[in-house]
Amino acid sequence: MEKIRFGIVGIGMMGRMHATSLQRNPHAEVVAVCARTESKVKAFQEEFGVPYGYTNVDELVNNPEVDAIVVATGADAHKAPCLAACKAKKHIFCEKPLAKTIEDCEEIEKAVAENGSKCFTVGFMRRFDPSYAEAKEKIRAGAIGKPILFKGVSLDPSSVLEAHLEGVKKGIYVPWFIEMGSHDTDLARWFLEGDPVDSFATGDAYVCTGLADYNDYDNGFSLTKFDNNTTAYIQVGRTATCSHVESEIVGTKGTLRVNSVPRKNYLSQFTENGFVEECQESFLARWGEAFQAEIDDFVDCVRTGRKPETTAHDGTMSLKFCLQLHQAYLDGKKK
Amino acid sequence: MEKIRFGIVGIGMMGRMHATSLQRNPHAEVVAVCARTESKVKAFQEEFGVPYGYTNVDELVNNPEVDAIVVATGADAHKAPCLAACKAKKHIFCEKPLAKTIEDCEEIEKAVAENGSKCFTVGFMRRFDPSYAEAKEKIRAGAIGKPILFKGVSLDPSSVLEAHLEGVKKGIYVPWFIEMGSHDTDLARWFLEGDPVDSFATGDAYVCTGLADYNDYDNGFSLTKFDNNTTAYIQVGRTATCSHVESEIVGTKGTLRVNSVPRKNYLSQFTENGFVEECQESFLARWGEAFQAEIDDFVDCVRTGRKPETTAHDGTMSLKFCLQLHQAYLDGKKK
Amino acid sequence: MEKIRFGIVGIGMMGRMHATSLQRNPHAEVVAVCARTESKVKAFQEEFGVPYGYTNVDELVNNPEVDAIVVATGADAHKAPCLAACKAKKHIFCEKPLAKTIEDCEEIEKAVAENGSKCFTVGFMRRFDPSYAEAKEKIRAGAIGKPILFKGVSLDPSSVLEAHLEGVKKGIYVPWFIEMGSHDTDLARWFLEGDPVDSFATGDAYVCTGLADYNDYDNGFSLTKFDNNTTAYIQVGRTATCSHVESEIVGTKGTLRVNSVPRKNYLSQFTENGFVEECQESFLARWGEAFQAEIDDFVDCVRTGRKPETTAHDGTMSLKFCLQLHQAYLDGKKK
Amino acid sequence: MEKIRFGIVGIGMMGRMHATSLQRNPHAEVVAVCARTESKVKAFQEEFGVPYGYTNVDELVNNPEVDAIVVATGADAHKAPCLAACKAKKHIFCEKPLAKTIEDCEEIEKAVAENGSKCFTVGFMRRFDPSYAEAKEKIRAGAIGKPILFKGVSLDPSSVLEAHLEGVKKGIYVPWFIEMGSHDTDLARWFLEGDPVDSFATGDAYVCTGLADYNDYDNGFSLTKFDNNTTAYIQVGRTATCSHVESEIVGTKGTLRVNSVPRKNYLSQFTENGFVEECQESFLARWGEAFQAEIDDFVDCVRTGRKPETTAHDGTMSLKFCLQLHQAYLDGKKK
Repeated sequence: MEKIRFGIVGIGMMGRMHATSLQRNPHAEVVAVCARTESKVKAFQEEFGVPYGYTNVDELVNNPEVDAIVVATGADAHKAPCLAACKAKKHIFCEKPLAKTIEDCEEIEKAVAENGSKCFTVGFMRRFDPSYAEAKEKIRAGAIGKPILFKGVSLDPSSVLEAHLEGVKKGIYVPWFIEMGSHDTDLARWFLEGDPVDSFATGDAYVCTGLADYNDYDNGFSLTKFDNNTTAYIQVGRTATCSHVESEIVGTKGTLRVNSVPRKNYLSQFTENGFVEECQESFLARWGEAFQAEIDDFVDCVRTGRKPETTAHDGTMSLKFCLQLHQAYLDGKKK
Repeated sequence: MEKIRFGIVGIGMMGRMHATSLQRNPHAEVVAVCARTESKVKAFQEEFGVPYGYTNVDELVNNPEVDAIVVATGADAHKAPCLAACKAKKHIFCEKPLAKTIEDCEEIEKAVAENGSKCFTVGFMRRFDPSYAEAKEKIRAGAIGKPILFKGVSLDPSSVLEAHLEGVKKGIYVPWFIEMGSHDTDLARWFLEGDPVDSFATGDAYVCTGLADYNDYDNGFSLTKFDNNTTAYIQVGRTATCSHVESEIVGTKGTLRVNSVPRKNYLSQFTENGFVEECQESFLARWGEAFQAEIDDFVDCVRTGRKPETTAHDGTMSLKFCLQLHQAYLDGKKK
Repeated sequence: MEKIRFGIVGIGMMGRMHATSLQRNPHAEVVAVCARTESKVKAFQEEFGVPYGYTNVDELVNNPEVDAIVVATGADAHKAPCLAACKAKKHIFCEKPLAKTIEDCEEIEKAVAENGSKCFTVGFMRRFDPSYAEAKEKIRAGAIGKPILFKGVSLDPSSVLEAHLEGVKKGIYVPWFIEMGSHDTDLARWFLEGDPVDSFATGDAYVCTGLADYNDYDNGFSLTKFDNNTTAYIQVGRTATCSHVESEIVGTKGTLRVNSVPRKNYLSQFTENGFVEECQESFLARWGEAFQAEIDDFVDCVRTGRKPETTAHDGTMSLKFCLQLHQAYLDGKKK
Repeated sequence: MEKIRFGIVGIGMMGRMHATSLQRNPHAEVVAVCARTESKVKAFQEEFGVPYGYTNVDELVNNPEVDAIVVATGADAHKAPCLAACKAKKHIFCEKPLAKTIEDCEEIEKAVAENGSKCFTVGFMRRFDPSYAEAKEKIRAGAIGKPILFKGVSLDPSSVLEAHLEGVKKGIYVPWFIEMGSHDTDLARWFLEGDPVDSFATGDAYVCTGLADYNDYDNGFSLTKFDNNTTAYIQVGRTATCSHVESEIVGTKGTLRVNSVPRKNYLSQFTENGFVEECQESFLARWGEAFQAEIDDFVDCVRTGRKPETTAHDGTMSLKFCLQLHQAYLDGKKK
């Protein structure tokens, strides 16, 4: 059996995550890696047993022993490897968000269209989480009638605030409706099967007030009307007591909820404080299974020629929606 | 011990409810009742053992043996008994919404101000539900830091739709943001300690399409910015699988939820469908304790001279907020 | 409408509870009360507005204006009022346990049989709790097939331990398998529709070690085989973090649970400790509705001539089962 | 980095499971496999890429390229590979139960003692489930005071009944207190840190009556007194609506629960039946993470020389306890 040979572009947390997932997939192997710092590339090669190491992405994508690449760099560095890999006729798995500007997104979309025989997808891994996948399946089977409202709440614990402010000051991090929002905007479009029209947003830098200087916030609340007369409520925040991503899809005949109580595991306790269920501490604990499943699905697409469900256009539309929410927030502030 | 002598104006479901609650209060008794139809008044008198029966509200409020009245007529008939009772220097418990127009509300507010030595309150019973009361108490004690978001979801089962459409056709029923919304608008103001500025609303008559002809809807979703930089998400609906009122107050240091799963009672089941908890079927099952507690509190106010927390102004402001949500919904539709 | 006229025997916590419940029932009134201390009788009369006060129970039961009595004295003082009331042809509601010895129980049973035209019942109020009542109804409707196992867990918070030890030292309190156990033994018989054969029990005075000197314990665990090949697991304890009565009925086709998480109310919290639901602090919070429902049912029986479901024999059998569990515990200790 | 080279003995469901887990461990590789049927061995070698295939276990354990073996045959075939591997000075991971008789267990224990420089463990994977591991950790940290009661409930859905009866008829399957019970008996000893003294057991073949002819049952309920004055309630069953393993550890200062509601995933639903959470359908869904963790721990022990916590003696004691429960069941039936 031939294994799909992968090159990893970017060796941060996400690059390592995908390398690990690929190693656990029996039909894939990681044969190449690319990053800016040569010493780090070498360390990565040694740790994961990867034969080829590069500091130039063109060399990686043009290595004939590379069948597919995973783009796991910062969002503003997605375009170059995507365009190069399209030209080199490789399969591409690109982390979300697709890019940082609509222009870049559209340029990628165009290149992907011209590389149509190959697989391309964006890493909206929530779609592959067993609970979200089952929710979608149930909706397709009519379990809740017609979906009319998507509610997406994505919260990080306040312990992340300081590091985030530093990242914002350095210009590395984007505002929360764009960073965390990219998942919920994709889910909203996926579940509602429509696109956003009007948005209204509120919120503030309530706790980490320094964020306000950068047009950023630690809590954002938004309501969006969709073109098919459905609605999305999207709430993002960084002042929660735990890592908490909760979603609800309200239909005309029933309602589905995902992770309303973000239980850490199966343990619960009777204590003097009451009945206590500890909560998820980080997004890794929550999404490990989903990260593996999305890579497994992508490998399967490459092997069978099936096209991934999530397209470059979904990447563009998710970003558009994020920017719309962020703009609605800024507009609201001006009043 | 002297009992507070009550007159009940209106003998529909709410009038009967309050009569029952008053009978269970050891410091109150129902001595008079007023409604339009004499035969119904008589039946009520017999059932509840009430000595005085009237078809004219002025006669009731001017009966010197009546200390206090409960106004439980339709919303557009609240003004007359309130004004008459203020003039007659009686204590007044008025059902929500205070009235159907801001003008009427303000007229009542004025009369109440002139009757300042007597107690007046509006029946926002949710404030007296043990769970909401405890939520408020915890917030006052600082348990969740500063509240920044109130989420109120008030749903009725779809079984109510047909009767509602009939009521709308007859002009008896008001749109859902005004009817059901009156509770959530009051809770939002109570928990956020601010007042609404801008609102954005969506929704539709998704299931009971006939409602659209009357500018009504079976689902409404809204987001409102408050003057103290907090936010209220209010969702009302009549297409749920059960009677479900859920609230969440998000603070800078924690979050409180009320009735996230509207369990009918303490029973749960392992069935072939999974782990099942049956849900509340009607609002009476949910709020019985709160209805009793609000009447008990009012009786206590009358006895001790303490002023009720919920004022006529709260009634006016709740209606204003409701009308704002309804208007936001209509504005959104026009686009 | 004629009201049923009640006499209350015993004015402790349970006597007051039942007086309050009777006052809330529109078809009942409390007309007489009896207790040992005259001043306390007078205070009770005044508080509840009761015309007749006695220190001699025979006088109470022979008052022709008394239709029915509630026996709410200590368990060893149930026999006298029951026998007297039977002789006087009155309806009797007797608190559980029926008596402290099987001999007393059987004597009461006999007297009750001779007073067959009148209503008699024992206050196993759990049967009237909406959740237990619904569980029984579902079982009757076949929802879980044939019940094969009843699990009853009845726990008090450790805050009760000190007072309990004092009561045990004074000989007022009986061991826990008899005191708290009386409810679970009744529920086991009710749900399993059989009677106990063999029991095995363990446990100890783990925390309140002083109880061991009195053959008492703060935790008891037991397994009992029933004559119809079903099983009861009964666990009692006084070292819990809250007041917690949980039951499970396992059937051949499904399982029912009651109060697995003893939530205090509808409020839940996200805190630094996790997702927290506060728990019931005392049995009064849990059973208020059941206490009212059992009195309402008894009043209805008296009015309509319907016989109460719970019989004197149920009282005897519950005590027998309790004593069997206690003996099994003692037998196990000797080994 | 040298990888630990494993040989797998037995290629049924458990053998395949462990092979998969070993492949996911970066420090291990599967180099040999042994089973009775040559064609199946070849198929397994091909599927998992295993160089050496055997039908004779002595050949496998004496292959100098094999460092450690996983024994995953039927319980009555554990002894031979264990003894051979001890003699060959190999590390051994043996599936539970250690053997089918105490004599076999003790023979293995003796051989293991003589192979003391090598690692040996029994596959009680529940100890490695994150929830159980955290429970143990919390107990060690004093979170619930002294444990006094372990409650273990292990249920299979009734869909397994027919296949089980066939297995029992063929003499392949052992009664449920021994098969499923092996986990709960180990957990009881682990959490209570004591050993069983007296047991009492009930139950029957309620649904699959054919089991009674083989001294087997579809539900077994037991209570066991431990030598340190603690207690274990162990319940096993095969007539549940889902796969459900629930445990509770009651301490003098708090209580821990594991998997009280066996939620399939994070999805919940509002349906006409109520609030529904689907349940785990098979033990694989529940324990996948634990199976991986126990192999990872074993590999780590082999690499570092650390001794596995679970010993051969634990295997013997678990079986002893299982047989005691089964005998208690049979004794109860005779009465």
